[in-house]
Amino acid sequence: MKKIAILGSTGSIGTQTLEIVRENKDIEVLGIAARENIQLLEKQIREFSPKVAAVWSEEKALELRSMVADTDTEIVSGMDGLIRVSTLPQVEILVTAIVGMIGIRPTMEAIRAGKDIALANKETLVTAGHLIMPLAEECRVKILPVDSEHSAIFQTLQGNEGNPVRKILLTASGGPFRGKKQEDLMYVQVEDALRHPNWSMGKKITIDSATMVNKGLEVIEAKWLFGVSVDQVQVVVQPQSIIHSMVEYEDGAVLAQLGTPDMKLPIQYALYYPERRDLPGDRLDFWKLRSITFEKPDMDTFYGLKLAYIAGRRGGSLPTVFNAANELAVRQFLNRQITFLEITEIIEDCIRAHKVIEHPTLEQILETEAATYERINSRR
Amino acid sequence: MKKIAILGSTGSIGTQTLEIVRENKDIEVLGIAARENIQLLEKQIREFSPKVAAVWSEEKALELRSMVADTDTEIVSGMDGLIRVSTLPQVEILVTAIVGMIGIRPTMEAIRAGKDIALANKETLVTAGHLIMPLAEECRVKILPVDSEHSAIFQTLQGNEGNPVRKILLTASGGPFRGKKQEDLMYVQVEDALRHPNWSMGKKITIDSATMVNKGLEVIEAKWLFGVSVDQVQVVVQPQSIIHSMVEYEDGAVLAQLGTPDMKLPIQYALYYPERRDLPGDRLDFWKLRSITFEKPDMDTFYGLKLAYIAGRRGGSLPTVFNAANELAVRQFLNRQITFLEITEIIEDCIRAHKVIEHPTLEQILETEAATYERINSRR
Repeated sequence: MKKIAILGSTGSIGTQTLEIVRENKDIEVLGIAARENIQLLEKQIREFSPKVAAVWSEEKALELRSMVADTDTEIVSGMDGLIRVSTLPQVEILVTAIVGMIGIRPTMEAIRAGKDIALANKETLVTAGHLIMPLAEECRVKILPVDSEHSAIFQTLQGNEGNPVRKILLTASGGPFRGKKQEDLMYVQVEDALRHPNWSMGKKITIDSATMVNKGLEVIEAKWLFGVSVDQVQVVVQPQSIIHSMVEYEDGAVLAQLGTPDMKLPIQYALYYPERRDLPGDRLDFWKLRSITFEKPDMDTFYGLKLAYIAGRRGGSLPTVFNAANELAVRQFLNRQITFLEITEIIEDCIRAHKVIEHPTLEQILETEAATYERINSRR
Repeated sequence: MKKIAILGSTGSIGTQTLEIVRENKDIEVLGIAARENIQLLEKQIREFSPKVAAVWSEEKALELRSMVADTDTEIVSGMDGLIRVSTLPQVEILVTAIVGMIGIRPTMEAIRAGKDIALANKETLVTAGHLIMPLAEECRVKILPVDSEHSAIFQTLQGNEGNPVRKILLTASGGPFRGKKQEDLMYVQVEDALRHPNWSMGKKITIDSATMVNKGLEVIEAKWLFGVSVDQVQVVVQPQSIIHSMVEYEDGAVLAQLGTPDMKLPIQYALYYPERRDLPGDRLDFWKLRSITFEKPDMDTFYGLKLAYIAGRRGGSLPTVFNAANELAVRQFLNRQITFLEITEIIEDCIRAHKVIEHPTLEQILETEAATYERINSRR
């Protein structure tokens, strides 16, 4: 039996992870954590009987405790609860499908406890890659990417240990506004930005796709995961989302992973790596596919992507500013407090104002996040 | 120093192998063999100083011997000469870039002598895969494919040991007559058929591309190389020749190798496997590429491909008939003795007439070849 725990079990990646658990008879879920969706948590507790379930507020924890009083599942809360789930004895793999920088500490604690990480929390590496990657190496745990793009890169690196990577070709759908110019995006509504052409995902990441900030975060993440510079990561717009990413080697060979847009593939690959298992679902049919197209990303319109390169190249605490500014700006956009184009403007403003800390500690990263939020909140 | 020998050193693959030797300082060529191009052989002897060089006829050998009397290279001839080159002590890898079934015996002797095989001789596996593959396993030698498609498949299998292959997607350019129908091909001239859109290759293989018989041979070869059934091998027409082939796994993931059409990549990969080395040359530029397209092959027009599936599925001595009939028919077409469409007609006629030998010995394979030639020669 493979034993796992899931941070963010009620979200998109979390529920798909549980579908994989349901379809395979040899995984056991020992711990789950979610922010506040206690209705779904209750269902998950009844179906998967984890030893521990965490919810963020103690208030919600109390409520959930009484809802599942007839079960053996222990209910915990707060950061201590998250860390409890992340470090449960016997757990081999922690799936970090939680959103936001809140995931960094539990991830680090899990690494210290020797758990492999199935990483779906972008913020962890974007802001704390310089802490996480050496720690993982020191503790000899694997960081298994769950993101479709990074999983594709990871898959095409297999069997190439010792072969230097010349370039990572990170594919992007281009989002719902591909082909548009700045002036076309002035009056974008929340509903327009949430209409992603290929992938069905959470709201935050869907907006990030529309601004291409998501791709920028992935560029920085790739730098840490695969030990390359951000300038070795080339974003290629591939609107059909069939090629999930590619690696170019020294000899000019490009290896690519292709597939239908199904997040269950990278999740399952991370859980059973290096084994591949049958996965029900659509298959690519190259006799019907007709064509795969490629474009250069328009970094003038999708300026957030250019800012990501600037933040990733400079490093230190700057990627934290990039990420935190985006996080709050997207929240404000979803609350209809700012316009679509203001998301990128806010990020740029915060980046320009920030004095970079070279090798920030976790505390400094969290302080930088708070300072960035404060700056944005003081704007209005 | 890596030590190699090359059968077919004056042909397209042979000369490109020598270019790689020239560009890398750590390979030594101990033996070379060619049919009759003694002018080029002399140059190669002077540049690479092999211990032994073989030429087919004793007459040409005599001539060459006097041409290079001032060197230390020993000149040998005939099948004995080929085998001498293939089994030279110290040679680690034999590059079999010779054309035709004449390559089978030297390849088998090399395997028995413990040499890894960089295989560019299609006929070896197509006709004698049932002898070669078990022999290679028994002698623990690697069969490293040099063909661009099979190298691509081999590359995408790395790191997937133990993961069953669901499907091999063998890509095909479609050749110069892609999109044409039978009636369009009635008056095809030799010059038309020799005009390949993407690859610059020898005459025989260029005609085989035009009939798609080449792809059929590759389907049968893939069956042996990768231990699948011919029905697991799906031919996908990909006219730009950018995707060199793909593998679909159980989980639906498709891994592909892409690159510019440069045979030096698969040759170098086979020679240094699993290491990849820098290789000068054009790189794919996905920002400029625009699109990759896919089509289903038209097996009514390119009926030779359908015949290959029939021969490959039935097995035994039938692939030998398919290959031998094609070999002679192409020669007759190049000599303007038959029309383009007759190539496939002749193959079909020979396949229909043949009584299959289930598990032919090498002698039976060669007898089948001779009988096939006889049948075709008695047609006129």
